[in-house]
This record gives sequence, structure tokens and C-alpha cells, in this order.
Amino acid sequence: MENEIIKYLTKHTSLSDELIDIVIASTIIKNYKKGTVLLREGEISKESYFVLKGCVRSYFINDGEERTIEFYTEEQPVLPIGYGKGIPSGQYLECIEDSVLTLNTTEHEKEMFLKYPQFESICRIMTEVMMANFQESFVNYKITNPEERYLFLQKERPYLFQRVPQYQLASYLGIKPESLSRLRKRLNRK
Amino acid sequence: MENEIIKYLTKHTSLSDELIDIVIASTIIKNYKKGTVLLREGEISKESYFVLKGCVRSYFINDGEERTIEFYTEEQPVLPIGYGKGIPSGQYLECIEDSVLTLNTTEHEKEMFLKYPQFESICRIMTEVMMANFQESFVNYKITNPEERYLFLQKERPYLFQRVPQYQLASYLGIKPESLSRLRKRLNRK
Repeated sequence: MENEIIKYLTKHTSLSDELIDIVIASTIIKNYKKGTVLLREGEISKESYFVLKGCVRSYFINDGEERTIEFYTEEQPVLPIGYGKGIPSGQYLECIEDSVLTLNTTEHEKEMFLKYPQFESICRIMTEVMMANFQESFVNYKITNPEERYLFLQKERPYLFQRVPQYQLASYLGIKPESLSRLRKRLNRK
Repeated sequence: MENEIIKYLTKHTSLSDELIDIVIASTIIKNYKKGTVLLREGEISKESYFVLKGCVRSYFINDGEERTIEFYTEEQPVLPIGYGKGIPSGQYLECIEDSVLTLNTTEHEKEMFLKYPQFESICRIMTEVMMANFQESFVNYKITNPEERYLFLQKERPYLFQRVPQYQLASYLGIKPESLSRLRKRLNRK
């Protein structure tokens, strides 16, 4: 399964054979049971992940209500907000399926940068890729209404509709569960 | 004014005296008149900026309607979505005040990385900082309602209320201009 990471990295950057071996040798893979909370509000986030299998949900609790920010599935990096900043997080990260993740820590990254300076370049490029994805998600959310978001999700990530509870999907789309059922009914009639 | 960039960079990373000289020597500063469009939908974005003075608005046009994504003011980097990706942008970037910006291009960056490999590390860290800011903005937008966003803006960036036209502010908050005036009246009565 390490190959998934190599596949992901080589989509965006060119890795020498040497670096491929290093990445594979230094990758830590862990299994997490459904329901595992990887990060809680108030905790300091020191770990980042890459999803090999499963689904991680990122959410916040605001006025007692869960607000889902993202669902991370296969071949997506999970970078907690404030990762490596040393300040308490406001975020929750939870495995909503049995998941297989690679695990990365800030200490491990620092070590790698010292040992293999070429990693700086790869990490810069990968951070740029992640930022671009983030910018796109933000813009898409901001310029669309819930119906457009629903249709976009149906087209781009249809599998989420089977894998994710309805109330989480609703809050991800920025609406209440009741509005999601109404939206569904309306779209089914079309 | 180059010192503003050095100030910004040293907030997040440590620069050797040599690198400070290099950054200053390689910085291109340009003046832009109010109304200058730096990037248009359909164009390929090859330039990024840093605001020394003035204000750059980022927006999209969706169904004929402008949707403001961000206002970049003093000491903020402006990284267009899709910067360096070589694909046509959906974004507009416009100077809504007379502005002084530093100018960076993908070619210039590549040159710098070859000449001064230490730049990779600085760019990685700065990209991480920008990404963290982006993540925060996204989350704040997603977990708040327009009134909360308005109060947050009033607290964090009160100067925007003087510098930015009302209709742009409304779309930035995710509401119609009429709703913004109603919101204002309601808050003034409190």
C-alpha cells in the first residue's frame, strides 16, 4: 500500500529511485478502528496523515453543533489546521470507517529534511498542491448554493453518499438535515 | 518598503543576512492604479504578489454575479488560485485602491531555487503559513453565519469597512447588499 503514496507524490513531482526507496522505508502505516478520534478540540496537533483506505472526517463544534469541514478518503492527505504550530486545535478528526493511514509527525519531518534536503522541494510542491486544493474547495463553497454543492458532490465524489451519515453530509453542504431531505426530494422529482 | 517583506518573512522563518540581501536585491516592486485588473477569468496566472500598500480584491463571476473571495491588504501575500499550474483561471484579481505590490513570477522562483537552494525551505514554510491562513478562513466561513462573520471582520479588520464598497463587502460575507444594510441596522440597535 506504500505504493499509493508514491503514486500520489509522482503525480505532482518527480522522485528519484533513491527517494522512492527512502519514502517507502520511512513510511509508518497504522490501522484505526471506526470511531477513533485522531484529534480533539484543545489538543495540539502533531500528526498528519495520508488515507490509504477508509474515511476521516474533519469537523468543528460550534454552539454545540457539529460542522463538518471535510471528508478525507483514499489518496487524500489530511493536514490538521495548525499542524506543527504548537497551539491547541479547535478541530476534531475522526475515522468514520475502519481506516488505514500513513502517519507523519513534525519531528519525523524535521529529521527527514536534515537527512535528505531534497525532501524540502517535494514538501514545498506538495504543500502547494494541498493549498491549491484548499483554495478551490473554499471558492467552490463560497460561490455555490447548497443545491449546486450537492450536484457537484454527486458528480465528483458520488461514493460519499453511500459512506457518510446524512446529518454529516448535510452539515458538509452547509444545511440542516431536514433541508437535505427536501433538497433530495426536489432533485428526484426533476 | 522592501523591509516589509523581510519583516513578514522573518515572522515565520529565520533569514541569514545573506538571504536578506538576496531577497531585497531580487524583489520587484510595481505601482498599480486603482482599477487595474491583475488577473481575469480565462487567463493563465503566472504572477503572485505581496501587498506593500493598497488593496487587491479576489472575486469570481458566477451566473453574472460577482462573488468576492478575499481582500488582500498591507503585508498579505496574494497567491492566485492555479498559480503556476498553466491552466486558465476562473478568478479575477483587481486593485481596488492605488496599490504598491511586489511581483513574483514562476520563472523567477525557479531561477531563485536553482541559485539559492535555501529558498526552497523558506518557500515551503511560507506556503505552509499561507495554507494555514487559508484553512482558517475556510473554516471560519463555514462554521459562522453572516452576522458572526460581520462581527469577526469588525474586530479583526475594521479598516475594511472604510476601504471597501458595500456591495463587495456584502458578497464577501456571503449575503446580498440589502441583507448587509439590515444586518447593520439590527446591530446598531443592539
